[in-house]
Amino acid sequence: MCRWMAWLGQPVLIEELLFKSPHGIVDQSLHARMGAEPTNGDGFGLGWYGTGEGPGIYRSVSPAWGDPNLRELAAHVESPLFMTHVRAAIGSPVQETNCHPFRRGNWLFVHNGFIADFHLLRRDLMLAIDPDLFADVHGSTDTEVVFHLALTFGLEEDPIGALERTVGLIEETGHRHGVANAVQASFGVADGESLYAVRYASGGDARSLFASADADAIRHLYPDNPRFQRLTRDDRLIVSEPFSDLPGVWHEIPEATSAIVRPGGVFETQPFHT
Amino acid sequence: MCRWMAWLGQPVLIEELLFKSPHGIVDQSLHARMGAEPTNGDGFGLGWYGTGEGPGIYRSVSPAWGDPNLRELAAHVESPLFMTHVRAAIGSPVQETNCHPFRRGNWLFVHNGFIADFHLLRRDLMLAIDPDLFADVHGSTDTEVVFHLALTFGLEEDPIGALERTVGLIEETGHRHGVANAVQASFGVADGESLYAVRYASGGDARSLFASADADAIRHLYPDNPRFQRLTRDDRLIVSEPFSDLPGVWHEIPEATSAIVRPGGVFETQPFHT
Amino acid sequence: MCRWMAWLGQPVLIEELLFKSPHGIVDQSLHARMGAEPTNGDGFGLGWYGTGEGPGIYRSVSPAWGDPNLRELAAHVESPLFMTHVRAAIGSPVQETNCHPFRRGNWLFVHNGFIADFHLLRRDLMLAIDPDLFADVHGSTDTEVVFHLALTFGLEEDPIGALERTVGLIEETGHRHGVANAVQASFGVADGESLYAVRYASGGDARSLFASADADAIRHLYPDNPRFQRLTRDDRLIVSEPFSDLPGVWHEIPEATSAIVRPGGVFETQPFHT
Amino acid sequence: MCRWMAWLGQPVLIEELLFKSPHGIVDQSLHARMGAEPTNGDGFGLGWYGTGEGPGIYRSVSPAWGDPNLRELAAHVESPLFMTHVRAAIGSPVQETNCHPFRRGNWLFVHNGFIADFHLLRRDLMLAIDPDLFADVHGSTDTEVVFHLALTFGLEEDPIGALERTVGLIEETGHRHGVANAVQASFGVADGESLYAVRYASGGDARSLFASADADAIRHLYPDNPRFQRLTRDDRLIVSEPFSDLPGVWHEIPEATSAIVRPGGVFETQPFHT
Repeated sequence: MCRWMAWLGQPVLIEELLFKSPHGIVDQSLHARMGAEPTNGDGFGLGWYGTGEGPGIYRSVSPAWGDPNLRELAAHVESPLFMTHVRAAIGSPVQETNCHPFRRGNWLFVHNGFIADFHLLRRDLMLAIDPDLFADVHGSTDTEVVFHLALTFGLEEDPIGALERTVGLIEETGHRHGVANAVQASFGVADGESLYAVRYASGGDARSLFASADADAIRHLYPDNPRFQRLTRDDRLIVSEPFSDLPGVWHEIPEATSAIVRPGGVFETQPFHT
Repeated sequence: MCRWMAWLGQPVLIEELLFKSPHGIVDQSLHARMGAEPTNGDGFGLGWYGTGEGPGIYRSVSPAWGDPNLRELAAHVESPLFMTHVRAAIGSPVQETNCHPFRRGNWLFVHNGFIADFHLLRRDLMLAIDPDLFADVHGSTDTEVVFHLALTFGLEEDPIGALERTVGLIEETGHRHGVANAVQASFGVADGESLYAVRYASGGDARSLFASADADAIRHLYPDNPRFQRLTRDDRLIVSEPFSDLPGVWHEIPEATSAIVRPGGVFETQPFHT
Repeated sequence: MCRWMAWLGQPVLIEELLFKSPHGIVDQSLHARMGAEPTNGDGFGLGWYGTGEGPGIYRSVSPAWGDPNLRELAAHVESPLFMTHVRAAIGSPVQETNCHPFRRGNWLFVHNGFIADFHLLRRDLMLAIDPDLFADVHGSTDTEVVFHLALTFGLEEDPIGALERTVGLIEETGHRHGVANAVQASFGVADGESLYAVRYASGGDARSLFASADADAIRHLYPDNPRFQRLTRDDRLIVSEPFSDLPGVWHEIPEATSAIVRPGGVFETQPFHT
Repeated sequence: MCRWMAWLGQPVLIEELLFKSPHGIVDQSLHARMGAEPTNGDGFGLGWYGTGEGPGIYRSVSPAWGDPNLRELAAHVESPLFMTHVRAAIGSPVQETNCHPFRRGNWLFVHNGFIADFHLLRRDLMLAIDPDLFADVHGSTDTEVVFHLALTFGLEEDPIGALERTVGLIEETGHRHGVANAVQASFGVADGESLYAVRYASGGDARSLFASADADAIRHLYPDNPRFQRLTRDDRLIVSEPFSDLPGVWHEIPEATSAIVRPGGVFETQPFHT
């Protein structure tokens, strides 16, 4: 049920992290190890900041592993901040408007997980979206509704707070409809400058989420790895599952925790309260 | 802005009407003459009754003129009752869930036209959908909302009445939001036995709509046309625009009119009141 | 690297074998057990005989597990003879013209396996195709070349003999280019009346292939299984891997063996010599 | 039957020329004025030079007018040299491997036109391709064969000469098969530094082709047009049909003529001899 990754750091060719890492996100589209399913073949999306106004988005219903355009794009676009998501659909149609990341203005949003019994809750949740945003929900995923709720609750001013309020509302709506443990999630958010990530599940046992260690630490651990030697203090990855098994390179983000990555490689976590 | 056709009559290979008629619906996807645009290349759909339970649907985002699967299907499926729609998108994404016909149970629904300023009215109209049906709206077209409103207002018991109530509600919702002439439409409905069609626009000047003449009349007019000689009294076509220029073969359905085609070629019209 | 199935017997709704069997071919698109890879998500195809002239074909680049049109078609088309193939691409592009089955006139052809170093052999093999057929090769798979070679060598008169000569030519061409073990294959062929299947690999260890047991035997083994009780003597399945683990239901076709299924459930095998 | 454009000059956001020009190439996909057909909706392609190694390619089977990814890419990629092609298929399948531009190493190739009776000539023409290149022909268009013949005849050393030899060979092959007027074409070629264009038809009446005038001339003609005032001496467009009707902005390239655009806006033409 989906895998995602986000990069903030020095500008890199996107293919470095999509195709050239040993167990990068495209490999995870076919062979995920820590997800609910090994296969995440129901479309994918890439959102990146760089040239032009606001983030660009490339979304496709093809499996990421077989899409020639993704290879081309990744080999010819450089970015200091981008997110990629590979999808395993659970009920909603395989269509581009259901592929992550979702975007509004300068903001991007991805999600691994689900709203339980979304069919039951969908109407109430959509009614809670700011009426001015309602008509901008183009697809039929739970995630797009979560995103528009978060926008309604102030994502653009206070991303983590808005997600706390959003998750709280969904849990409460779930309770009203007899749905326990309404939210299962890792969320990723970007605003063109920073990255925000949340790992949370209403009933615990949230989807996996990891951050890369300090570049310094990684370089010291693996002095012979040329890829790692190119890392700088500015570089940080957030991923659904590690790109490699190397010890010391990846730190698990605890459950019920939010993380912020700011320029310069600053990485902070705090408890996520709903 | 879309063209559609519907057949009720003797079982025929679908290709007879899609590909073998001189200006059939697939030709209209590329060269429509009476539509708002000559090109209807933003996907298409075919719904048919025959083998299996309820109607089958084939929908694709490809232009109808170039889709090899449509040719195959049309050449290998026979049906006494089917509808085809070619789409010219006006705003909503090109995705299968936005292609007509829409379906619920045994019912199929197609639409040529639009709801004016749908972006403004979408939320209010979706709130008027029966809450039990709300979560079944999978795409983002105005038409799918119209269909679910019609289901809410009793389409399955009284198709024309339900459409009158639906159009009335949309016009009223439009007025509340300062949107004049909210509805521009020809609608087509099938339930597995009969066909229902409506031509109506809030401000007049509704999309074109035609019915084929009595098979007897057509045969007498064109005694040398082998295709027409195969027609029986049971056969009737409803089309956005005629498949040919032959006089006497097509009757225009007047504005603000509903038409019903019943088995046996029975064809009745009545005024459409909102 | 691909899975396929073929049915010859009483007319059935195609979904019975694609979707309603416990480990049917669509399940195998996501969770193959005996293939080179569990995932066969690089498009698929269905060829069936029934209404209309010659076999119909539906091919798509979507994974079979997520294609709504395949579900529709399978639920609304009945056929006494059909083949389905799910693809795991190994090098050639994911496009409809690379999806099996391939067709000429009344003939359908599917393949699980590959020609080794096809890139090296492609030109010589294409030159061996009957010049009148050359321009009908539309895609870029090894399989389509195999099919056109088999047509060149008399597939339509002597299917198994033509495949023997084809495989022989490919092995010989391989030898000339220093390619050992040029052919890895199970092949399936249909002509509208009978089914032909081959299991063969130049170096042994051929792709798996199974035939269903006599309907009588299956019914006696599983008297409480309603699905099996509907089987008749006419019914026979050929599959890359069994739809279930039930003992006695499936017989492995030995390596270097061809099999013929004729109307009435007649099943014959013979050695396959190249 | 196809339209294309190529830009060489100052780096620009690709959308400037695809979407923001009044009758740009995307508008021509729906409303071509000088082509064989107004609609060029059978896929498209964009090839650009910029970041990363060699040119990037984005190709899609969707009509260019409705593809959201093309809009995204065009709004977020800047390039000093790029080509776009919108396709109207005439016989060969709508698939990405049949979309232009075709690429080898640093070279891109587009074509508007056709080889007459390609079905008859295909085998002989493919045999004339350098055997080492043969297996790299992935699609089924005449254009891809032309491109590989041109590579065979030295495109990378002498682009125009190689195209002259290629066209000569095709005409000669046509004669052998009784096909008169074998080649109808405008060709576009890029190598990362310069642009090459050819307008030629075996029997005359070649597809239209235009070059933009000197930037100086354009600026003097239209002093109030802010878009034109941003033009520099380096900028040059080659197009199947003009983006506007403004006099003095576009120069028709004569029939049987090749043109070269070099950095610095250098524009040279010479007769094209086969």
